[in-house]
Amino acid sequence: MSDRDKKPRFQRAPGKRRNQTRDGRPAWRDREVDGPVILYGWHTVAAALGNPQRHIRKLLLTENAARRLREENIGTRITPEIVRPNLIDQRLGPDAVHQGLLAEADPLQSPDIAALPLDGIVLVLDQVTDPHNVGAILRSAAAFAVKAIVTTARHSPEATGVLAKSASGALEMVPLVTVQNLARALTELNEVGFMTVGLDSEGSEDLGAVALRQPLALVLGAEGRGLRQLTRETCSVVARLDLPGEIKSLNVSNAAVLALYIGASRLGLMG
Amino acid sequence: MSDRDKKPRFQRAPGKRRNQTRDGRPAWRDREVDGPVILYGWHTVAAALGNPQRHIRKLLLTENAARRLREENIGTRITPEIVRPNLIDQRLGPDAVHQGLLAEADPLQSPDIAALPLDGIVLVLDQVTDPHNVGAILRSAAAFAVKAIVTTARHSPEATGVLAKSASGALEMVPLVTVQNLARALTELNEVGFMTVGLDSEGSEDLGAVALRQPLALVLGAEGRGLRQLTRETCSVVARLDLPGEIKSLNVSNAAVLALYIGASRLGLMG
Repeated sequence: MSDRDKKPRFQRAPGKRRNQTRDGRPAWRDREVDGPVILYGWHTVAAALGNPQRHIRKLLLTENAARRLREENIGTRITPEIVRPNLIDQRLGPDAVHQGLLAEADPLQSPDIAALPLDGIVLVLDQVTDPHNVGAILRSAAAFAVKAIVTTARHSPEATGVLAKSASGALEMVPLVTVQNLARALTELNEVGFMTVGLDSEGSEDLGAVALRQPLALVLGAEGRGLRQLTRETCSVVARLDLPGEIKSLNVSNAAVLALYIGASRLGLMG
Repeated sequence: MSDRDKKPRFQRAPGKRRNQTRDGRPAWRDREVDGPVILYGWHTVAAALGNPQRHIRKLLLTENAARRLREENIGTRITPEIVRPNLIDQRLGPDAVHQGLLAEADPLQSPDIAALPLDGIVLVLDQVTDPHNVGAILRSAAAFAVKAIVTTARHSPEATGVLAKSASGALEMVPLVTVQNLARALTELNEVGFMTVGLDSEGSEDLGAVALRQPLALVLGAEGRGLRQLTRETCSVVARLDLPGEIKSLNVSNAAVLALYIGASRLGLMG
């Protein structure tokens, strides 16, 4: 066995995972649903303030950030607390580029698979755990007008903090559909008419050569491990991304944007 | 003024930047050239061990990692110290996924612009500072058989640690050309026959519509700020990436991989 997976990329209180509630959901999911989402950074907070679906509980702004919001005619909806930058530094730690804005908000509602529109592209993430990567994928999803991102409740980072910052406002634009069982969700997508295309280095043909059609679900797996066996088996097609160089796999957010570009171009969705 | 750029993404000793050596180079560059490069993680260390140009000073391995190297017939070149995983944890901090391998090595030589081959694609990075992003760009560069990456000595992360890990071995495959002045380097590229294409949301045409030719230099700017004025003016063409969705810009490593795919496809370099 290798040491490959010994460190989780995001932290959870030890032992919490086995601590089930009566309906069988792990207790930490409830904590997540009830707990506030932390949003910081200009694009992230400005987009949240512009989203009527997003309930803002608390807003900390520096003088500069408050002025910039006024200049760009972005209403704060609740009365902000004007603070010094180092107070936000203390809340977020030294590495967070918060640009003078910090909001505490409720999580957004997760829509059902049945509510997805039957056109365009959705992305499905199979245990992609790094919040930077999931955030960058959300941002690319918004850039390519993706209809939704489907992820599992477990083994996915929470839609807060670093993920929200990396998404650069896209958390307010692309619905996140959180499911308990990814294979069941893929079966549901197949049943309502989606073409489900898994991306895997072991895929049978190059994505550029697959006859794609709408509605299209592009399925991406975790770095290193790729798609799980059951995920692969539930997809309509498993395709690879052919690369001409010495390294044969991309960072997952880079693979996602390339798949989106190929998918959107082939389907005539580039606008 | 906004708080946008108040936090550097990588740290340098305060005051060092103004501390010039006799030849005019900042002192911290000398420190970097002399100081060891820290490499960790399976792909990163395995690729370094396979690169005869890379001088390894010291190698720490867990029992598991040493066994895996033996199983995959990867020679260690120097006698490794076999250690417990927590010793490597202590060296790298809690967030580093080191998989039981840590090497201290010399930096690789930086080739000159004049030594670049006059075919294929090179990437030019204008003050892209996030080491995760630069690492992911290196990995994509190796995946697309890019001939070299040109960066500035200042305002670029060092080729060590997080950058090396994110590059997933690509640091050993793609030459890094470090220059003091990017506009001068672009002028040199123009003079030896490169088509230099800057990517910027204000570009005059979509990259997909530009008549590209080899040798091609694709120039990417920092997140948020984009290309600097002088960089833009020195490029043969400034192109944009048209996106159909609500967000009009991508994470810089995602923009890079898309530009590489479009460039390599148009130039018939997809293999």
